[in-house]
Amino acid sequence: MQNKEQSSCSTQRINSFTQIDEIAKERRKSFFGGDEVRYVEPMIDIIFPSVAFPSNKIFKAIGQEKIREMVWHHHELLLKTKVGRLFPANEEAFKMAVDKSADFFVEALGGGDIFTSIHGEPKLRARHFKIPIDENDREIWLSMYKKTLKEIEFPREHLEEFWNWIEPLSIRMINRRTSMQNIKRHYWNNVRISF
Amino acid sequence: MQNKEQSSCSTQRINSFTQIDEIAKERRKSFFGGDEVRYVEPMIDIIFPSVAFPSNKIFKAIGQEKIREMVWHHHELLLKTKVGRLFPANEEAFKMAVDKSADFFVEALGGGDIFTSIHGEPKLRARHFKIPIDENDREIWLSMYKKTLKEIEFPREHLEEFWNWIEPLSIRMINRRTSMQNIKRHYWNNVRISF
Repeated sequence: MQNKEQSSCSTQRINSFTQIDEIAKERRKSFFGGDEVRYVEPMIDIIFPSVAFPSNKIFKAIGQEKIREMVWHHHELLLKTKVGRLFPANEEAFKMAVDKSADFFVEALGGGDIFTSIHGEPKLRARHFKIPIDENDREIWLSMYKKTLKEIEFPREHLEEFWNWIEPLSIRMINRRTSMQNIKRHYWNNVRISF
Repeated sequence: MQNKEQSSCSTQRINSFTQIDEIAKERRKSFFGGDEVRYVEPMIDIIFPSVAFPSNKIFKAIGQEKIREMVWHHHELLLKTKVGRLFPANEEAFKMAVDKSADFFVEALGGGDIFTSIHGEPKLRARHFKIPIDENDREIWLSMYKKTLKEIEFPREHLEEFWNWIEPLSIRMINRRTSMQNIKRHYWNNVRISF
């Protein structure tokens, strides 16, 4: 198996399920039950793109309190969407979840280890495994962030750096695939006009 | 992004979430909120291994009726497990689902296009998207196949070819990840002693 993986690499081709129609066209003819065993190559699903973790510029510009306000605002918007079902129904538990998320955002933006000192490594993908998160949940999460950034008047000069972090980061939380399609990207260049 | 993907390929290294602890150890120190934006590399989740589609030897040896019996036996065992919840509760709908699955197995083993002529391309991964299937569901599916093959007295000389097909094939149905771990392999060399 290792050989196969490496060889598809050395030819600069990693087959992905998102290419499946193309691959099928190449070689479907009389596929099944020939005289010999037939090998279908290893595949990957999606490639989770690079994530640009922000510098401390945002924290220096807006501070802890504004970051917490942002995370709360976002979660209040999420509650009104179908992603809301993924959060604890109990009010106290919900509050704890949002505060924890806010701790993470503060730390990630340069406000000190207030998350990791209590909860350990972020391991965001692993932390979200207990909740099924599909491609559409991620679309909603991201679009509610867009709305949040507008509504809280996040400083315009730092929007790009922030967006370039959360946009690819959110892809890493997807743990339930419902389609062969690649994950939709929302690049800053296409999103900036909505701010 | 394309560049990044290719470069991790040309160094023969595709980072996978399954290596995340190792990667974390390398470079976690003071990760967040430095003076500069910091890039985390693209990642993949699992590599779906090569699938060895069987020759027509099995079909020639056991024929359509035995294959149908096998698929029915397997589904009756599944119904007694937690995977049973994934099938239609309605008896008629369940029967249709199993017959369709049996059609697929007959065709895949060389019994002619009785599946594709009605349903089109198999696209097994796509067909299963509507149902969440996690790593453990696949373990159960596979272990019930092991039981089935014993109980229906599948011909010993064809077991290896059949197993080498369904074992990696079953991995491709996983669409709900609940862990960072690689998918457990059940290689024939380890499984053969149980037959």
